[in-house]
Amino acid sequence: MISVREARPGDGAAILRMTEALAESHNTQDLLVAKPEDYEAALFAQQPIVGALIAEIDGVAAGSAFWHRSFSTNRGRELIYLEDLAVLPAFRRRGVAEALMRALAQLAVDRGFYAIYWFFMDWNEAGRALYAKLGAEIISGNSVGVLKDEQLRAIAR
Amino acid sequence: MISVREARPGDGAAILRMTEALAESHNTQDLLVAKPEDYEAALFAQQPIVGALIAEIDGVAAGSAFWHRSFSTNRGRELIYLEDLAVLPAFRRRGVAEALMRALAQLAVDRGFYAIYWFFMDWNEAGRALYAKLGAEIISGNSVGVLKDEQLRAIAR
Repeated sequence: MISVREARPGDGAAILRMTEALAESHNTQDLLVAKPEDYEAALFAQQPIVGALIAEIDGVAAGSAFWHRSFSTNRGRELIYLEDLAVLPAFRRRGVAEALMRALAQLAVDRGFYAIYWFFMDWNEAGRALYAKLGAEIISGNSVGVLKDEQLRAIAR
Repeated sequence: MISVREARPGDGAAILRMTEALAESHNTQDLLVAKPEDYEAALFAQQPIVGALIAEIDGVAAGSAFWHRSFSTNRGRELIYLEDLAVLPAFRRRGVAEALMRALAQLAVDRGFYAIYWFFMDWNEAGRALYAKLGAEIISGNSVGVLKDEQLRAIAR
């Protein structure tokens, strides 16, 4: 039995385990420096821009969906950007990701967000299959650009 | 002479012209329903999650960068997501996009954001060339998934 709930104070460490699992899948462990308290500070701020759902199996955190508020210039309204959809290795292939997607859809509907969107790597075939099953529109042929830290400062006018 | 400034009340119509120009480039005019007042409501809210820079040539709005606050689960900190980088057709090939990127980098540095990131379509070779010139890291092989409106409600658990 999978149950999904909103993150609570104290969930920072569980969320970090999810981020670590994703970083392993993407081979980006060197980029991961967040601490549990960073997540809790953002999640439980006065006017948070982020939120998280925790999926549990028998009361144990099995997966999470970490999202933030976004804005569509086409629609002129806020929507949800799904930053991370993570399932711990021991709990994969049991429907956790689907349960999280459905719960996030419910959260979006409840709060008046008209859409959810997310990016995923083209090699993520399991993800693509789930998203297609849920009826998502999928647009391929995208790249991401990043400017950070020293490089960001270097181009500041 | 290109000058870049932050958006002010009254800029909603100029921003909509930029969104329209992007929608033409992407052939997504049917998705564009935003009104100038939608942008102004978001930009000048009490705790805004979005911001916009306007590039002017001889005092005329030539381009804009529309961004929103985002959050990295790897870094545990907020960063800037560049939603739209737009230049009106009559002002292209004059350095407007580069001026906007540099001004956005300065804004990020000034406000303590460690990074800017954005997505772009792989067919956007002019964009890719600019981002490479600015030293951006570029990661290819991404897809975007979207669940909205009826489809979002259909999967809500």
